[in-house]
Formats: sequence, C-alpha cells, structure tokens
Amino acid sequence: MKFKTFALALATAASTTLALPAAAQFAKPEDAIKYRQSTLFVIGQHFSRIGAMVNGKAPFDAKAAQADAEVIASLAALPWTGFGPGTDKAAPNKSKPEVWSDSAKFTEHAQKFEAEAPKLLAAAKSGNLDQIKAAFGPTANSCKSCHDNFRAR
Amino acid sequence: MKFKTFALALATAASTTLALPAAAQFAKPEDAIKYRQSTLFVIGQHFSRIGAMVNGKAPFDAKAAQADAEVIASLAALPWTGFGPGTDKAAPNKSKPEVWSDSAKFTEHAQKFEAEAPKLLAAAKSGNLDQIKAAFGPTANSCKSCHDNFRAR
Repeated sequence: MKFKTFALALATAASTTLALPAAAQFAKPEDAIKYRQSTLFVIGQHFSRIGAMVNGKAPFDAKAAQADAEVIASLAALPWTGFGPGTDKAAPNKSKPEVWSDSAKFTEHAQKFEAEAPKLLAAAKSGNLDQIKAAFGPTANSCKSCHDNFRAR
Repeated sequence: MKFKTFALALATAASTTLALPAAAQFAKPEDAIKYRQSTLFVIGQHFSRIGAMVNGKAPFDAKAAQADAEVIASLAALPWTGFGPGTDKAAPNKSKPEVWSDSAKFTEHAQKFEAEAPKLLAAAKSGNLDQIKAAFGPTANSCKSCHDNFRAR
C-alpha cells in the first residue's frame, strides 16, 4: 500500500505531458524496476536515432524523426512511476540512493525532461532539421543531467 | 545491412498505426532483442491494468484506462522492428524459430494486434466500461494467439 501511494504521488508530481493511471500498479518491485528500465531504454533508442540525424551520422528523415519524437513524448511521463519505495534494490539496477533520499530533486529532473519532450516533438513536426537541432540539445541535457546525478556508472 | 533491410521490410509490413522510422536502427542485435522485450513488457503492464478493471479486480477508473490504452496504442507497432534476422539468439529470449521461419504468419499476428489496439483506445475514450470490456477480449486474444504460436513457455 505504501509502495503504491508513493508511486502515485511521484506520478502525480512528475506527470505534465500525459494523464497517468490513477495508481501506478506493479505486482512486485521487480516489475517496477523492469518497467522504468524498459521505458527509459525505448526512449533512449529513439532519442539516439534523432541524435544520429542531428549529428550527421544518419541522413535526415523528417518522417522518421517525427515518429521517434512521438514515441519519446508518449513515454516521457512513464519511467518515474517505476521508482517507488522498495524498488531500489529488488533487482539489479543503476539507480543511486539519491533517487529516494532526494526525491524532490529527482522529480525536478524528471519534470525537466517531460517539459523538453513535447518541444522536441513540436520541432520534429516542423520537418526542419535546424529546429530539431535546437530542441535536441536541451532535451539531451535533461537526460544527461539526471543520469549524472541519479544513475551510477 | 541485411539486418536493417529486413527490419525495415517487417516494420513497413506491420505498421498500420504509427509512422515508423524509415529504418529500424539498432546498434547491435542485443539492442533489438531488448527493444522488443521492453516494448512488449510495457504494453503488457498497461494491458494488465485495463484487464484488472475489466475483470473487476481493480475499481474502474476511466481516465486511467484511457491513459493505459494510449500507451498501448502508441507502442503497438514498435515491437516487431526488433525481430530482424540475427536477433533470434543474440541474447536470452523466448522467441520461437517460427518468428523467422514463418514471418508472414508472424506479421499477420502483429497486424492483428495493431488493428485491435486503436479499437481498445477508442473504447477507452468512451469512458464506458462495457465498451472497454467488448474491445478488451479481441485485443487479449490477439496477444494470446501470437504468444501461443511464437513465444516459448
């Protein structure tokens, strides 16, 4: 019960882009860990694809970039629901203790990313690579900043 | 190159709900496996939440059901891009050899799910539990049928 309540509070606090389920329902802590790892991995994959276009390592494909940005925006609010209490060590993972000991700061980072994702999507919808480049940097920084602070190497 | 080409063909064939990236770009086969497992796990989690409401194991929350259905619809076309050649044994996974030896049938199953996901979303948007129940069954069957045929126990 306590686990669900915290997850709900975190979800409510962090969710700005998507109406999240009223309660983040995980059958067990391992599922929550797998869920946050899964959503972040998928976000990372699609973000890398946009990054390859931004960095000139892949040809620019406006339609693909938009599809990638749509996936990112759709998932942006989800990972944080998987960081409830009791999910720090239930399965192997790289989260630092600060996720839970400084949850206000963690939520702030999550919200930063959630705020950037729709901007990246808007840029991708323009079909203009320069606009995508402009939005890509701040989004990438929001990822990096959170990883630097809350993910072990 | 061959890997990417196949993944693209499969993505093009299976994608009915979302404009997929022009090429499914995975750095290595392990990433493709992790990607399909991640997307399917997240879909499964949200599908289970709707299932709990449908089966009366959780109180009906129309807003939550819609959010769950939105995640499912957003991800419905993605997993299949992770089933390219060379991704059968690159990392532990439960895919049967038939995914690759009978790819036409596998794609058919994928398309069935992709066709059901937006119907489930439309039902969820109605806010009516009976409509959600009606759409839930066929969607669940599309999952089960594919798992029965293409996923090892």
